[in-house]
Amino acid sequence: MSRENNKFKVIVDAMGGDFTPQNPILGSIKALEEKPAIELFIIGDKEKIKNSLSKENLTFDESKIIHTTEVIDMHDSPTSALKKKKDSSIVKGAELVKEGFAHAFVSAGNTGAMMAASTLIIGRIKGFGRPTIGAQFPTNNNKPCTVYDVGASVDSKPTHLLDYAIMGTIFAKEIDGIENPSIGLLSVGEEESKGKSVTFEAHELLQNSKLNFVGNVEGRDILKGKTDIVVCDGFVGNIILKFGESFINFLKDSVRAYAAEGLFNKVKALIAKGVFKDSLKGMDYQDHGGVPLLGVNGISIIGHGSSSPLALKNMILKANEMFEKDLLNKLREGKDFYGNL
Amino acid sequence: MSRENNKFKVIVDAMGGDFTPQNPILGSIKALEEKPAIELFIIGDKEKIKNSLSKENLTFDESKIIHTTEVIDMHDSPTSALKKKKDSSIVKGAELVKEGFAHAFVSAGNTGAMMAASTLIIGRIKGFGRPTIGAQFPTNNNKPCTVYDVGASVDSKPTHLLDYAIMGTIFAKEIDGIENPSIGLLSVGEEESKGKSVTFEAHELLQNSKLNFVGNVEGRDILKGKTDIVVCDGFVGNIILKFGESFINFLKDSVRAYAAEGLFNKVKALIAKGVFKDSLKGMDYQDHGGVPLLGVNGISIIGHGSSSPLALKNMILKANEMFEKDLLNKLREGKDFYGNL
Repeated sequence: MSRENNKFKVIVDAMGGDFTPQNPILGSIKALEEKPAIELFIIGDKEKIKNSLSKENLTFDESKIIHTTEVIDMHDSPTSALKKKKDSSIVKGAELVKEGFAHAFVSAGNTGAMMAASTLIIGRIKGFGRPTIGAQFPTNNNKPCTVYDVGASVDSKPTHLLDYAIMGTIFAKEIDGIENPSIGLLSVGEEESKGKSVTFEAHELLQNSKLNFVGNVEGRDILKGKTDIVVCDGFVGNIILKFGESFINFLKDSVRAYAAEGLFNKVKALIAKGVFKDSLKGMDYQDHGGVPLLGVNGISIIGHGSSSPLALKNMILKANEMFEKDLLNKLREGKDFYGNL
Repeated sequence: MSRENNKFKVIVDAMGGDFTPQNPILGSIKALEEKPAIELFIIGDKEKIKNSLSKENLTFDESKIIHTTEVIDMHDSPTSALKKKKDSSIVKGAELVKEGFAHAFVSAGNTGAMMAASTLIIGRIKGFGRPTIGAQFPTNNNKPCTVYDVGASVDSKPTHLLDYAIMGTIFAKEIDGIENPSIGLLSVGEEESKGKSVTFEAHELLQNSKLNFVGNVEGRDILKGKTDIVVCDGFVGNIILKFGESFINFLKDSVRAYAAEGLFNKVKALIAKGVFKDSLKGMDYQDHGGVPLLGVNGISIIGHGSSSPLALKNMILKANEMFEKDLLNKLREGKDFYGNL
């Protein structure tokens, strides 16, 4: 599996995220400490990158800084930014993957722009209609449940939902080491008759595929861990993801309000926090690092704007793992195998 | 507002729910204790009802038991059950509201059958394309956020979403006493440009209405309490509702697992439970009692199968309140006022 003759090359976006360029730089250095064999390039404003490196007393090969002059920020509209900001780190980074200069691009920048650049510039893997992003939820089963899609595409057609299931299956097998990942189709009832037109058709496609399709699952089945993978439209998945994240904040705020009511409450609140800390760990965005955009013809990892250096390090190592495990070819083969109805 | 000459008449389904007929009967008796002016009928198998009354040592006017011979259970398919089980409590109860014999029907039975019976037998209020069910979520704002629709309709059209917003506004004003309820349209981003075809159109309809429309809201804004009301398709709303309920079970299970690891943990888990109990109260189905199906031409209250006597009592009192406050007429007037684009 390892590629001695084909060294993993990754480009890290220094301009993407809320804490730039320091967090991407610190994450890069940490990743290199752990995996020195990675050939890592940092893309962005060269002066700013150099200043940040010297401020942090870090050394980094200057020839591996790729200079760009523009920045797509969080307020830019993704598609128009791609057209207008040709010399941005996101556009250039995607182009360098497209050209084969690098295998992977990692950014905590504008999510929409990263998705658009990856899809439109790097391009899709033949056969997959739309790329997808998965999010892992903790479950009572002690193994996560990954929901696809959580925001890459809305108004997904039944064939897209099948594609998400195929990509999710390959990722679960190759990266998470799950032998025969089970798949649920998110709907409003377990019965085949419950749902809406798109899910009825998707149900049939999934049932006729070679995937380990279990049937419809409901909103409650995600945290129960009923299946390894849950597929749904990105509109629904994104809303659940954000709802789930806000639930944690809701709990935190509730505990804070409780703690404010006196010293005795404060002590009890501290204990309560400790009890829940472990079980809620998997649902906190910071722990994930970032998520791969599956279905594009290159490795594209998209991180949360607030990504910490640790999160960025994990994103780079995830990209490396996807490369080592030859995931893109596995996805191509998987489409042929599972999608052959 | 009170209607001395027009006494509130309600029919309670003795056969609906997991604990029949005792829970509906106990709930009815409790409701009558609180509001003796209510004219309350119990519908179902007369012998079973009488046996249950005598077993519990309760007295209830026998002339107010409406005998039916059939039962629509949880496994019945709603629409075919309506056709086949003409002498069921759900079909008869809805018919008696349709005929004007009673103002309201309350049942913890088969939710789908209750929705179908209410919509098809009682009928819709003119102007409202589809009925809707709302669910209240607790928020960090100390006031609940009500999400419409959480399961009455899937594949809602933009005009349906506008209708949910109108019905939610009237309900919030008349029943919850909120002066000028704010409305958010659930989507995948706050910007008007984020969403999908249905939400784009709904956004325009809402913006051009006289409603207090705030704009798009995201999954995270429900528990933040950003708006009093959130509208979405029933497919999405139902998934969020069930996901939210499962989150509480997830927490409970996590605490249980934590507590099992020794006496010290057990004590800490008990404290943690106490801390969260209050803040999560609003999200537990049992506390809601039941929810009205808005948009039908009569008062229809649908309860969870596991409804306790307390929940059933609250459902009956909610129906009484809706009657006292003349909600059906307010909905009719509201459609004219707010829906007049």
